[in-house]
Amino acid sequence: MSRTSDVPLYGGIEAGGTKFVCLVGRDPTDIRAETQIPTTTPDETFGRVIDFFGGHQPLAAIGIGSFGPLDPDPSSPTYGYITSTPKPGWANTDFRGTIRRALDVPIGFDTDVNAAALGEFTWGAAQGLDTFVYLTIGTGIGGGAMVGGRLLHGLLHPEMGHLLLPHDRQRDPFAGVCPFHGDCLEGLASGPAMQARWGQRAETLDPDHPAWPLEAHYLALALVSYICVLSPQRIILGGGVMKQAALFPLVRQGVQALLKGYIRAGEITEHIDRYIVPPGLANRSGVLGAIALARQAVRNE
Amino acid sequence: MSRTSDVPLYGGIEAGGTKFVCLVGRDPTDIRAETQIPTTTPDETFGRVIDFFGGHQPLAAIGIGSFGPLDPDPSSPTYGYITSTPKPGWANTDFRGTIRRALDVPIGFDTDVNAAALGEFTWGAAQGLDTFVYLTIGTGIGGGAMVGGRLLHGLLHPEMGHLLLPHDRQRDPFAGVCPFHGDCLEGLASGPAMQARWGQRAETLDPDHPAWPLEAHYLALALVSYICVLSPQRIILGGGVMKQAALFPLVRQGVQALLKGYIRAGEITEHIDRYIVPPGLANRSGVLGAIALARQAVRNE
Repeated sequence: MSRTSDVPLYGGIEAGGTKFVCLVGRDPTDIRAETQIPTTTPDETFGRVIDFFGGHQPLAAIGIGSFGPLDPDPSSPTYGYITSTPKPGWANTDFRGTIRRALDVPIGFDTDVNAAALGEFTWGAAQGLDTFVYLTIGTGIGGGAMVGGRLLHGLLHPEMGHLLLPHDRQRDPFAGVCPFHGDCLEGLASGPAMQARWGQRAETLDPDHPAWPLEAHYLALALVSYICVLSPQRIILGGGVMKQAALFPLVRQGVQALLKGYIRAGEITEHIDRYIVPPGLANRSGVLGAIALARQAVRNE
Repeated sequence: MSRTSDVPLYGGIEAGGTKFVCLVGRDPTDIRAETQIPTTTPDETFGRVIDFFGGHQPLAAIGIGSFGPLDPDPSSPTYGYITSTPKPGWANTDFRGTIRRALDVPIGFDTDVNAAALGEFTWGAAQGLDTFVYLTIGTGIGGGAMVGGRLLHGLLHPEMGHLLLPHDRQRDPFAGVCPFHGDCLEGLASGPAMQARWGQRAETLDPDHPAWPLEAHYLALALVSYICVLSPQRIILGGGVMKQAALFPLVRQGVQALLKGYIRAGEITEHIDRYIVPPGLANRSGVLGAIALARQAVRNE
């Protein structure tokens, strides 16, 4: 755990609804420490996060990629808060301020999926791109994006999991599990939606189970929306559900079939295997992206 | 038609499938000449455009906002071309190069809807915003956007009219008119779609005709997609179909009803009348945006 004084170390937090992944390091090739802390109450979880990073000071900065909805606007009085999450105990929590007050370092703060997008841009499958989408399909579905080389925020931040899509109830009578929208994308295609529809966890479904073509259909519909609205140069699909290898070719074929040749870009019509891809950082896109947020925070100080 | 030598004039072209609107001036308060030229063949239409602007030289630059699909990538060999349009005679047309060679001035080039977005940003309803959408609903449906203060391009340019949306065929058995996708947004909600469904032109339908709540429903579904993917700070709705004043309140109510309070931004939950708005430049967003493209082209030379 040695380090030279002229090479700063950074902290990264990928804050999920189940666990916080915390990492100390500089980049994917220089990871000094990593731990996972269960997401219980803000007091307990933040306390353990602060203890972990406190044991690795001095750090140049800490980056946070958090579940949301949250407030990513530096000019807002609630900047750095988790805002309206339905997760018990976590609504209106001053995440950024709590960590900053305890550890007295610059803090980078964004959504978990924007952090993952930044991680993929910095070291992964989106290097050199200007405009792309990172989508995670797991317990929930969420998307981050960079546009013109900047993380996308706009009004608040995207909510790519809550798209309203065609839902053929004859093919799939399942009503959906989203507490807000029922059969939005997350309601139809998240891990919990698959489990509720098929009665078993997604990772236990055989590759030739009819669950997968249906899942690919919903994801392809969503990707077509992202393509029509944002015109990304690449779409990265991560998260637990995407660990089913059969899914990528089905999603790619689905996107081509739905677009029907209308968008004449070779990336889609000829090389879609390089257009819709897995993360370059495997399951560390988010926490390494948090390290990249920390590095930005130092520059922004 | 006098001008002082130190105040340059610009040309703007809003190129549509029916007509080209050409304007000479500096901004909305200083318009020196304007004309409309029918869209016939490229040779004839470009010839008349060149004659018009040739009579107003010297111009500092000309901006073009064109129907598409087109190639807006300055690094591409077909930059400035209209590419894969189904409009007879117009596919693979070197729009930018033809105008540039004839008039020997810098040329700004983008989609008609990106030009309109830039016009609204510069002088209209999007002044001071960072991230917003301009959507036109008329003969076709198309969207432009600025994100982080820049016009959105990405892979090519957005195709916001070709979103695939929930289509309740019991409520609306109409199959849609899009030659590519059938019942995409443009297929269900453009002016020609309304005319085909109801047997009369949209502008002749009474304000209490059932066409309008259905139209508002499709537009609200599309706007929810733009909000989930792009998180715009405002959405501007222009084009001939939006001239029906009854439509704006219906679309606003539809968006709120579909989002179900999930995106807790006062702009949507409280002040949606300032969030979904008509253009500030009325029907001149596109051609004035082309003037703004011309001004950018001078800076980029």
